[in-house]
Amino acid sequence: MNEIERLIALLARLPGLGPRSARRAALALIKRRESLMEPLAKALQDAAANIRNCSVCGNLDTADPCHICTDARRDATLLCVVEEVADLWALERTGAYKGRYHVLGGTLSAIDGVGPDDLRIPALVERVSAAGIDEVVLATNLTVDGQTTAHYITERLAPTGARVTLLAHGVPVGGELDYLDDGTLTAALRARRAPEG
Amino acid sequence: MNEIERLIALLARLPGLGPRSARRAALALIKRRESLMEPLAKALQDAAANIRNCSVCGNLDTADPCHICTDARRDATLLCVVEEVADLWALERTGAYKGRYHVLGGTLSAIDGVGPDDLRIPALVERVSAAGIDEVVLATNLTVDGQTTAHYITERLAPTGARVTLLAHGVPVGGELDYLDDGTLTAALRARRAPEG
Repeated sequence: MNEIERLIALLARLPGLGPRSARRAALALIKRRESLMEPLAKALQDAAANIRNCSVCGNLDTADPCHICTDARRDATLLCVVEEVADLWALERTGAYKGRYHVLGGTLSAIDGVGPDDLRIPALVERVSAAGIDEVVLATNLTVDGQTTAHYITERLAPTGARVTLLAHGVPVGGELDYLDDGTLTAALRARRAPEG
Repeated sequence: MNEIERLIALLARLPGLGPRSARRAALALIKRRESLMEPLAKALQDAAANIRNCSVCGNLDTADPCHICTDARRDATLLCVVEEVADLWALERTGAYKGRYHVLGGTLSAIDGVGPDDLRIPALVERVSAAGIDEVVLATNLTVDGQTTAHYITERLAPTGARVTLLAHGVPVGGELDYLDDGTLTAALRARRAPEG
């Protein structure tokens, strides 16, 4: 396998790229050697050398503890539990959350044989038991595994006395009822509320 | 901008990846540091250092002239003209072509201000004039610019005496008439032929 084929084979292993788009990406890289290919090679090296999981919350950062865990302006009494770092990023992009995080690294899964000790659940229980955390927001996904995990964590955290909350379910902002699945509509109906103001 | 953001920004510049899929790709890379991230960094470095355009045909290879130009088993009297290296790869995957190539590096375009001297057209004319080339297959795309380029090259090559041919147009293998555009159907009708055998 020559240099081009090896590059294409590696690019094709990225999520979102198949063999065809990997070839297109490889050609784009070769065409823009100085402006894209060399900087990307360097960025990958730097990231591989410097990025690690935060030992407190599981976030990815060059610092450990990460910049969220060490940010004194964030509410240390509020903890949001997410499955993956991508979920943490999604919540950070909203700018609406000012507490800290705990990244589980997945969900419980009987089929895949993932138990509590394979996730960062023991560390979560320890963290909530030890520190002055008032509220834990469970922001796992609305999948069977995500909800099973949330249920399990709720039980494990009961002895700590911390308040456990869940993200609200309902109609997405801008969502049209006609295009929504039944489960979302049902959840939105059950959680109906009086108009504000 | 930190290491993760820089990596995502560079990945998002690859064709086929947007901001969202670039984030997913970055997380996949970080998760598979040793099996994917470090090999990809090395493959990019190696490719940037070693891959160049063949000075004869414009193909990308680590050798110059490239392995196609130096392959004595290939027919040196037959030359196929393509727009980009990706087109050369597509023809090579068929295994049906045993001549050599000439990569133009694009098409003539009045709008983008691309003239013959911006492409490898002078080199093509020189190559066909000098060497013992019997036939030039024009395999530019069936776009307005691609066909304009083919027409221009046909005129430029007329004095050389080489035979100029075009790829056949028609119904793609496996194609259903109902889903084909009118232009393709028209071309297939005009080029209709007697059944074989």
